[in-house]
Amino acid sequence: MQEGTQTSSGHLAETRAGDVYAAACPTRQLLDRIADKWTVLLLTTLDGGPMRFNALKRHVEGVSQKMLSQTLKQMERDGLVSRAVEATVPVTVSYAITPLGETLVEALQSIIDWAEIRMPAVDAARDAYDARDTAA
Amino acid sequence: MQEGTQTSSGHLAETRAGDVYAAACPTRQLLDRIADKWTVLLLTTLDGGPMRFNALKRHVEGVSQKMLSQTLKQMERDGLVSRAVEATVPVTVSYAITPLGETLVEALQSIIDWAEIRMPAVDAARDAYDARDTAA
Repeated sequence: MQEGTQTSSGHLAETRAGDVYAAACPTRQLLDRIADKWTVLLLTTLDGGPMRFNALKRHVEGVSQKMLSQTLKQMERDGLVSRAVEATVPVTVSYAITPLGETLVEALQSIIDWAEIRMPAVDAARDAYDARDTAA
Repeated sequence: MQEGTQTSSGHLAETRAGDVYAAACPTRQLLDRIADKWTVLLLTTLDGGPMRFNALKRHVEGVSQKMLSQTLKQMERDGLVSRAVEATVPVTVSYAITPLGETLVEALQSIIDWAEIRMPAVDAARDAYDARDTAA
């Protein structure tokens, strides 16, 4: 990680610990991971309490088994969720959010709130854009 | 948009205007769009001031011409950025953030801050995960 990185334009990054605009900076690679819809949806779901794999799959509509597996594994490796295996037959696997994951939820929640609250404004913008396109 | 949607688990969504966990809800489709690394990086860049297409391309390292075009067009349609064309030869195209876009930047900035500040904790988690994997 670089300290006090300057970008060409000096936007935002100059007083920061990393530079998300630089493709090679590890913080950019981390942003690529967390600016991901499945991570957002899974982490905010687990913030409500631990959940089993199959319950997560039902709750987050549209996620495939493979994508859910991959995303949870990455989230576990990144320290955002923990995985617990119960020795039932068949084994029960459940996931819980970690304290580090909770810090990310706080940041992510503002995005979800935005999507839910600003939808009418976005819809209006789209209608205006499409009407202009048709008129041109 | 649905009012006061109940999800199967009742997590988060019950008092909200939309339900991002439901694949068919328009807010989920909007989240899919904004939980995207290029949107995050472009919008926070434009929050520093209007910028021309080529300057954006240089500032946000790793973005292709095609991806930049597509993302800016979607952002314009969603009302997050505005596009201005100057009649120079060749024409100069520049992009500026809108007031709606500024509300999203506030929400997005918390994600970038998280990525830049929490990187050491994520690194430590990855080292622990990989060491455990090797030991198993």
